[in-house]
Amino acid sequence: MTARRVAYAGERRLRIDTAEPTPPSPGEVRVDVAYTGICGTDLHILHGEMDSRVDPPCVIGHEMSGRIAQVGAGVRDWRPGDHVTVMPLVPCRACPACRAGHAHLCHRLVFLGIDAAGSLQNSWTVPASALVRLPADLALEHAALVEPTAVAAHDVRRAELRPGEQAVVVGGGPIGLLIAIVARRSGADVLLVEPDPYRRSVAEGLGLTCTDPGGGGLAEFVERWTGGAGAAAAFEVSGTAAGVTAAVDALAARGRMVQVAIHPVAREISLHRFFWRELTLLGARLYDRADFETAVGLIAEGEIPARTLISRIEPLDRAAQAFAALESRADVMKVLVDCRTNGKADSR
Amino acid sequence: MTARRVAYAGERRLRIDTAEPTPPSPGEVRVDVAYTGICGTDLHILHGEMDSRVDPPCVIGHEMSGRIAQVGAGVRDWRPGDHVTVMPLVPCRACPACRAGHAHLCHRLVFLGIDAAGSLQNSWTVPASALVRLPADLALEHAALVEPTAVAAHDVRRAELRPGEQAVVVGGGPIGLLIAIVARRSGADVLLVEPDPYRRSVAEGLGLTCTDPGGGGLAEFVERWTGGAGAAAAFEVSGTAAGVTAAVDALAARGRMVQVAIHPVAREISLHRFFWRELTLLGARLYDRADFETAVGLIAEGEIPARTLISRIEPLDRAAQAFAALESRADVMKVLVDCRTNGKADSR
Ligand SMILES: [Zn+2]
Ligand SMILES: [Zn+2]
Ligand SMILES: [Zn+2]
Ligand SMILES: [Zn+2]
Repeated sequence: MTARRVAYAGERRLRIDTAEPTPPSPGEVRVDVAYTGICGTDLHILHGEMDSRVDPPCVIGHEMSGRIAQVGAGVRDWRPGDHVTVMPLVPCRACPACRAGHAHLCHRLVFLGIDAAGSLQNSWTVPASALVRLPADLALEHAALVEPTAVAAHDVRRAELRPGEQAVVVGGGPIGLLIAIVARRSGADVLLVEPDPYRRSVAEGLGLTCTDPGGGGLAEFVERWTGGAGAAAAFEVSGTAAGVTAAVDALAARGRMVQVAIHPVAREISLHRFFWRELTLLGARLYDRADFETAVGLIAEGEIPARTLISRIEPLDRAAQAFAALESRADVMKVLVDCRTNGKADSR
Repeated sequence: MTARRVAYAGERRLRIDTAEPTPPSPGEVRVDVAYTGICGTDLHILHGEMDSRVDPPCVIGHEMSGRIAQVGAGVRDWRPGDHVTVMPLVPCRACPACRAGHAHLCHRLVFLGIDAAGSLQNSWTVPASALVRLPADLALEHAALVEPTAVAAHDVRRAELRPGEQAVVVGGGPIGLLIAIVARRSGADVLLVEPDPYRRSVAEGLGLTCTDPGGGGLAEFVERWTGGAGAAAAFEVSGTAAGVTAAVDALAARGRMVQVAIHPVAREISLHRFFWRELTLLGARLYDRADFETAVGLIAEGEIPARTLISRIEPLDRAAQAFAALESRADVMKVLVDCRTNGKADSR
């Protein structure tokens, strides 16, 4: 048996080739990958923006679902056929962050799909400790949304949202939309700020209140929407300087801003506003097991509109087209790659 | 009876004049002011930097101690002769911040000594709701430190410091020093970062660990001091761009940075670092009644080295010299103005 895989080959190139599956070492399992979602991080890798961290050729991808194919020595609790997703973090368990109980912030964190091989392949061998169980009756294509949903669950948890609070989500891509949905389910009243009309139409179709920041009247809109108080929470998911300012300006006294998007350059922030209203800025990165389990539950209960979010599924050999579709941003939310050996096989 | 008072007269000028004391209206009390401490805010007013907010000529000053001289109609619980300090905040009780329980962040907050008459006068008439009781045996010159100590108590509370945690205080002026002392009393292991040798010598005399950020090796120093982890908390009290960077860089995974100093301009902040280590930035402003009561207790118990902190006391008619001494920063921590009618009267 051979396996097909998609590697970032450097210089904006993807390479699809064939390799022998890696047999699981003790403590590992080999997973037959069903679906892998592509996200902004994968695009950043493809664009060469993470060349200091990745080592081409390397298999990328980290938002996945699949079934256990083979179990290594010493692995308990898992059997071939089990439906799983993978929390793609391998912490060192020894650094100060790990010892303080923040393994997802490990100083030597290995992120599968960036620092080590990812899931854009038929067959993926991972530590059993990274597995997260999926209900057998959960559609595997929907389960490919567990990882981004866990991001959203983590971000909403970090904001400590209380029922009835008002929350502004700045940026309506897949993560922003998932945050808005998870925040709403926590009982918050949510406003999504997004300039792209397609993204707004998707969000509005899901019953979310949306506004276009383009007109310039955002601050007044939020002022009105919150009765002059400002919002209790804001999620900065846009990655833009304007988004940061919008999130800060939206907040009420003691409001919490969760920094979700990655900002590669330092941003000018009004510390005076942080002082004046006693605002809180909370950096948020990744997730932990509890967030993954929350995400599995949300998807299994149908709380996440998976059908609406998954815009397109491409077979593994068309991975380049899948990346191009995401890159174009033309009426696209999530794009999945069907990683099964036979793209026509059962999806459950 | 007439009263002497010190007013900011505009254009960097102080004016000392005489006026009739204001009789207390219902709900007010008239206080014979004993001492008023001068702080950076008073200097900012004098320098014209707050001209958009103050309305000269106006009596400034807000860090004080005194005795009740006269009680207005309807005031219970207070009697002439009671020793008091004043929490110089008059919130509106109606705006969203007040209704949410954050009266110190009131959208229409009147700060006595900025937005209304302050305590640099013999006789000060204030709402009884602003009074805070002092023990009769607490030296009134020490009690003039209650307000800045309340600031420190508020900042340390905002950091939610736990015993055994390591905390970096960036900036060793009076507020930074008070934060360091209050944090140490909370059980934290404190490092004070301060370029000025005099300020460091005062802090070292109080048993605090100090370092000079000037050499450039601050990050390595903190790395070593925390065994590679970074600090659990950092207080930015310097008001400088370099101080902000130093505080951010000092923090461990999930570290909390309390923004104490006022930054009149936006600062460039590494949001990537906030993301990567899941840092928290907490704006901190003023205090509430609980902080004032904590501060009174700390001073009464001798936890605040009042004798060391008070560098100089000038009589009211020499207020200009008091401001000049603070401005010079020459071997000075706190400067008090003795506001008593007869500068030679009893100090208790
Ligand atoms: Zn992703
Ligand atoms: Zn680690
Ligand atoms: Zn002050
Ligand atoms: Zn108010």
